[in-house]
Amino acid sequence: MKVIELHESVTASNDREADRLRDEMKKNGTLLINLMSSPGSGKTTLLGRTIRDLGNRVKIAVLEADIDSAVDAEKIDALGARAVQVHTDGMCHMDAGMTAEGLHAMGMEGIDLAFLENVGNLICPAEFDTGAGKNVMILSVPEGDDKPLKYPLMFQKSDALVISKTDTLPWFDFDMDACVRRAKKLNPDIVIFPLSAKTGEGMENFEEWLVQERKAWTNLS
Amino acid sequence: MKVIELHESVTASNDREADRLRDEMKKNGTLLINLMSSPGSGKTTLLGRTIRDLGNRVKIAVLEADIDSAVDAEKIDALGARAVQVHTDGMCHMDAGMTAEGLHAMGMEGIDLAFLENVGNLICPAEFDTGAGKNVMILSVPEGDDKPLKYPLMFQKSDALVISKTDTLPWFDFDMDACVRRAKKLNPDIVIFPLSAKTGEGMENFEEWLVQERKAWTNLS
Repeated sequence: MKVIELHESVTASNDREADRLRDEMKKNGTLLINLMSSPGSGKTTLLGRTIRDLGNRVKIAVLEADIDSAVDAEKIDALGARAVQVHTDGMCHMDAGMTAEGLHAMGMEGIDLAFLENVGNLICPAEFDTGAGKNVMILSVPEGDDKPLKYPLMFQKSDALVISKTDTLPWFDFDMDACVRRAKKLNPDIVIFPLSAKTGEGMENFEEWLVQERKAWTNLS
Repeated sequence: MKVIELHESVTASNDREADRLRDEMKKNGTLLINLMSSPGSGKTTLLGRTIRDLGNRVKIAVLEADIDSAVDAEKIDALGARAVQVHTDGMCHMDAGMTAEGLHAMGMEGIDLAFLENVGNLICPAEFDTGAGKNVMILSVPEGDDKPLKYPLMFQKSDALVISKTDTLPWFDFDMDACVRRAKKLNPDIVIFPLSAKTGEGMENFEEWLVQERKAWTNLS
């Protein structure tokens, strides 16, 4: 499994590079999903379950971005999906140039659905267009229902919000209605998927959304 | 309760401003603790419990830093401690100039122990000296025991590591020994406090450490 050391892009305009990468992915028939969240909210567990459930229907690849270690890519690799680990040279987010470099190193031939598992951070990744077709964020139940109030930009920039670890709802003071209301106030169009990747509850809604979005993406190209 | 809008400091040298603030706090008899963690790891809950337990022995103030909202400062305010909310103008961390501005606006007369509750972020806050006497980080059990592998700088920069939400250990795959070993490998001197601010288990060790560190800090001045 590859580990690639990246450095901040020298591209003058990140937005231009992002548009270029989006075009390239569209021509390739690949929907790239930028998956963002706090550390430990369950990005890798969600991806692992998605690969197990959808792996026979769509060809999936995962670009794992971290400051250090390769533990996430090793987990994805063990599931038989294409995976590459990139290290961000200490940086708190991925930009479009870094994403393109990682995807090219991994190889996108035949890939229907590619995930960028962004650096665990609820702030900085929201500020950089990575070139993804869709932005998805995760908020885990243990983090609390007040997070839309504190980190509004991430909720505004995301097409979908996964509320993860719903199997732990009995043990935490998490008001689902309040959380949904706060997220929708920031972003009325956000699609919300409460789910548990551990028990599987709610996974089918998220996975069906991925399949439909990928289909719509390819038809647009 | 005050809400203060801050902007990134124009100070040429953040490190120089940090040293200046440390000197000022020392002369004031105040130990400033920079409290850092991911979003939702329990910083405010830990501070709330600490204020309830220690409030009669030491005079505590809390500077709450967030991108938006004032929910944390309102919680601290309701406990009767001095509290100010600062907004970071979208920034992902606090620097020394911002911290000084916030502390001065709050007023430090008679304060023994001041906490800066930094922006919820396991990456960027570790890169900026805030002028605090001690750096304390929280890792919550739901986030997972692999975090030292992925976010090494935060563990290297912290004097103490609080492993929070230990009441949830039965419901998560969290290997305490592995986590402690990984943290100590990065920072052999780090002091580790597993605790639950909800049940109170382990709180007395952390609180006694705070009292002793404050005493040592004042004797040094």
